[in-house]
Amino acid sequence: MRAIEIFPNTDNQANLQLHADGSLRHLLTLEGLDRSLLVDLLDDAERFVTPPGRAAARSHSLVGRTVANLFFEPSTRTRASFDLAAKRLGADVLNLDVNTSSRKKGESILDTIYTLQAMQVDILVVRDASAGVPAYIARHVNDYVSILNAGEADTSHPTQGLLDLLTIRQRKGRFKDLIVAIVGDIRHSRVARSAAQGLQTLGIGELRLISPPPLAPDPDAFPHASIIDNLDAGLRGADVVMALRIQRERIGSLDGIPGIDEYFANYGISTDRMKGAAPDAIIMHPGPMNRGIEIESALADSPASAITQQVANGVAVRMAVLERVCKAMELR
Amino acid sequence: MRAIEIFPNTDNQANLQLHADGSLRHLLTLEGLDRSLLVDLLDDAERFVTPPGRAAARSHSLVGRTVANLFFEPSTRTRASFDLAAKRLGADVLNLDVNTSSRKKGESILDTIYTLQAMQVDILVVRDASAGVPAYIARHVNDYVSILNAGEADTSHPTQGLLDLLTIRQRKGRFKDLIVAIVGDIRHSRVARSAAQGLQTLGIGELRLISPPPLAPDPDAFPHASIIDNLDAGLRGADVVMALRIQRERIGSLDGIPGIDEYFANYGISTDRMKGAAPDAIIMHPGPMNRGIEIESALADSPASAITQQVANGVAVRMAVLERVCKAMELR
Amino acid sequence: MRAIEIFPNTDNQANLQLHADGSLRHLLTLEGLDRSLLVDLLDDAERFVTPPGRAAARSHSLVGRTVANLFFEPSTRTRASFDLAAKRLGADVLNLDVNTSSRKKGESILDTIYTLQAMQVDILVVRDASAGVPAYIARHVNDYVSILNAGEADTSHPTQGLLDLLTIRQRKGRFKDLIVAIVGDIRHSRVARSAAQGLQTLGIGELRLISPPPLAPDPDAFPHASIIDNLDAGLRGADVVMALRIQRERIGSLDGIPGIDEYFANYGISTDRMKGAAPDAIIMHPGPMNRGIEIESALADSPASAITQQVANGVAVRMAVLERVCKAMELR
Repeated sequence: MRAIEIFPNTDNQANLQLHADGSLRHLLTLEGLDRSLLVDLLDDAERFVTPPGRAAARSHSLVGRTVANLFFEPSTRTRASFDLAAKRLGADVLNLDVNTSSRKKGESILDTIYTLQAMQVDILVVRDASAGVPAYIARHVNDYVSILNAGEADTSHPTQGLLDLLTIRQRKGRFKDLIVAIVGDIRHSRVARSAAQGLQTLGIGELRLISPPPLAPDPDAFPHASIIDNLDAGLRGADVVMALRIQRERIGSLDGIPGIDEYFANYGISTDRMKGAAPDAIIMHPGPMNRGIEIESALADSPASAITQQVANGVAVRMAVLERVCKAMELR
Repeated sequence: MRAIEIFPNTDNQANLQLHADGSLRHLLTLEGLDRSLLVDLLDDAERFVTPPGRAAARSHSLVGRTVANLFFEPSTRTRASFDLAAKRLGADVLNLDVNTSSRKKGESILDTIYTLQAMQVDILVVRDASAGVPAYIARHVNDYVSILNAGEADTSHPTQGLLDLLTIRQRKGRFKDLIVAIVGDIRHSRVARSAAQGLQTLGIGELRLISPPPLAPDPDAFPHASIIDNLDAGLRGADVVMALRIQRERIGSLDGIPGIDEYFANYGISTDRMKGAAPDAIIMHPGPMNRGIEIESALADSPASAITQQVANGVAVRMAVLERVCKAMELR
Repeated sequence: MRAIEIFPNTDNQANLQLHADGSLRHLLTLEGLDRSLLVDLLDDAERFVTPPGRAAARSHSLVGRTVANLFFEPSTRTRASFDLAAKRLGADVLNLDVNTSSRKKGESILDTIYTLQAMQVDILVVRDASAGVPAYIARHVNDYVSILNAGEADTSHPTQGLLDLLTIRQRKGRFKDLIVAIVGDIRHSRVARSAAQGLQTLGIGELRLISPPPLAPDPDAFPHASIIDNLDAGLRGADVVMALRIQRERIGSLDGIPGIDEYFANYGISTDRMKGAAPDAIIMHPGPMNRGIEIESALADSPASAITQQVANGVAVRMAVLERVCKAMELR
């Protein structure tokens, strides 16, 4: 693993993300984006959802545009999702899996970006293990390039947040009064951060973050959530339960949790544990799942599971974001 | 290399491969597919063959469809062939070279498949080093996804079998009464298995499998073939000679065959050895060739060689299969 | 690193590159191509240049054609540039990053080529670390395949040469009487060789090659250039200064240059050093840059810099070359 680099702080990303008229220029984080913009994106995405067995949604709105997937961190699922989203909108797609070992300092990231910009890439989809990289890039590109964050350190994964919001809206029909419980390695989770930011903006009833104490987040990172270490207490009456992926290596370092079986017994979500949640509660997971560790396999495949729906919504949400930043560019 | 996994047995794949009306749903193996379906596929493929210097055949029959090449085993040639076949039919193509080291158990294969299915991939082209994987996947996908086997352990490589059949039909004009000799590492060859199954269904005169005894197959695997260890005896009067690629490492383990020169002297196909075959015999090879080991270089480039024709037919056959499974899906 | 292979000498590549009617069949080297053909290619490329913020240039001239990028040497920038150029002309693109460790002898290169040819690939873009490979391939393909050299050993990089020529023409409006200074590791630079060949054909005033003595070229390789080891002397009055990338490992082996700081002090191009050049001199670099080693960072981003313009021109030049070899094939 390479050392984590230090990038300028990421204050005021919300402003950085918007054109002067309020339209979306970059998607770096859900933090600070206002409610109407989030709802517009979810409504756009809804148009790109088609039922299984029907043709995938397509449009020509990115014909003549170039999308580059610049992944400094390996990914199969998210890269595939952006790749398909861009192709189904008619874009030319350039896939670049860049070995970060050849990347020593901020300058050389920018030179890669300037090169792609000179090649008239319109949209850069960036995944990086260092916090601040997408915003750093967004500050340096010219007026005709949009940056989409496809996963940034432990900090942010805004398209994942959007697909989670869309899935909840489809399954629950509302956000108001919902109790949402996120379970697992909250401390290191960009998925939890982006979901929490979006849910806060859309206005749910209660957000609970459940984890072993060593994996609990800094409370400042989640100002409106309650932090809980008892799973049953946290799940009580929850409408939405979101299990997070945990790195197996991390389990061994947890007090009183010597192995996978103990982790599952204490923090794994099972059909049995879900009995404490609301009767029609749904279970979500960002994937890829460790079945039998953070989630019981049968539960993942049960009617309560929204997991494959999340994946389908992922393509739809990315199509919506790609289309929206392209349209905003054309207005200028 | 990862350990070989155990998948449920693969009986009744023929039924698994067909829709209720007999049309092709998946292509997992040539075993059990009936004569008329094989002939239809060869006829379809023939339409996609154009002579050198003419434009490659194209159609729009997969426009709006998504094909994912999911290669758990590395491949350049077969992946390129499927990639071009899908693109020339207008499909969106997703190339996924998946590190199998991250794949520990059957469940995680299925999660990858469910993810691609949720992204509305229509056709999954799968290559895997473990026997049973394509059928295992086919049993678990929904009604709107087709699985194409692009190479499975030592077991099956049905599109290779089809391209071999097409090449023989083009060069010989018939199957009836043909003597076909396959030479080399039969024991470990999915190419030999698929060719034998197809040739048996189409009805040739005689199939001979020629190899050093340690590389001879289990006779049960090839019920209608004669197993021979003398090359000259095996080639006598043969109309079609198919040399197989041998792994160089394997040569050293063969009794009385201490090195490459001895292997070539005993089992290499040369212009001289071909004198014992029929006067108009052709030589085939699935590629990539070890020139000077299993085949004499000059012979590979001679008029008797059908090797580049096999490659050209490979794209045509894959276009035919892609188009046929797509059409069968649309009828439902 | 694999050992350098020996390929047949590359005399008469100019003839090899042209059809009988003088039109472009392959692009292997700029050496020997005549002035009118170079000017035609630059004029073609000019049509594919659009200003930032305008849509990238596109055409349908390669619809139905297949371009394979066959990179035996890793590359991100040049591969991306050819990929986008081909896609923007409507071609189907096959990207093959081939592990050269599996390539033991010339024969197996040709088998890869014959395979792609049989798949009806129309244009093969080849990058290789061994001198002679593109010409060797060009001698063996059939009449319907064009070979484009995307970087060959220390020998040749003709599309880089063309993009350098186009950039100089755009910025200087002429070639006549220009003083061009190339600075850095001339000895190992295919960029310097291709630029020198093109500039010689188009007729500049003076070409100067500036480097530490151990990195000076064999004078026979640059018959019309002066070889200089003093940077200030070399830059005096220069209209165009081209800095080359140097491998960091090589710096330590240079007499009197123990480290990066000394290299920059002696051979790095800075705003200060540029004061000795012509008042309106431009600075170029083929990328990727080592900022602070061969070029001062501020200079690279200054108005005198043509570096991003070079990148933009790279796509345009590659579109021009792809279109021209395709048209020449259609005439046959």
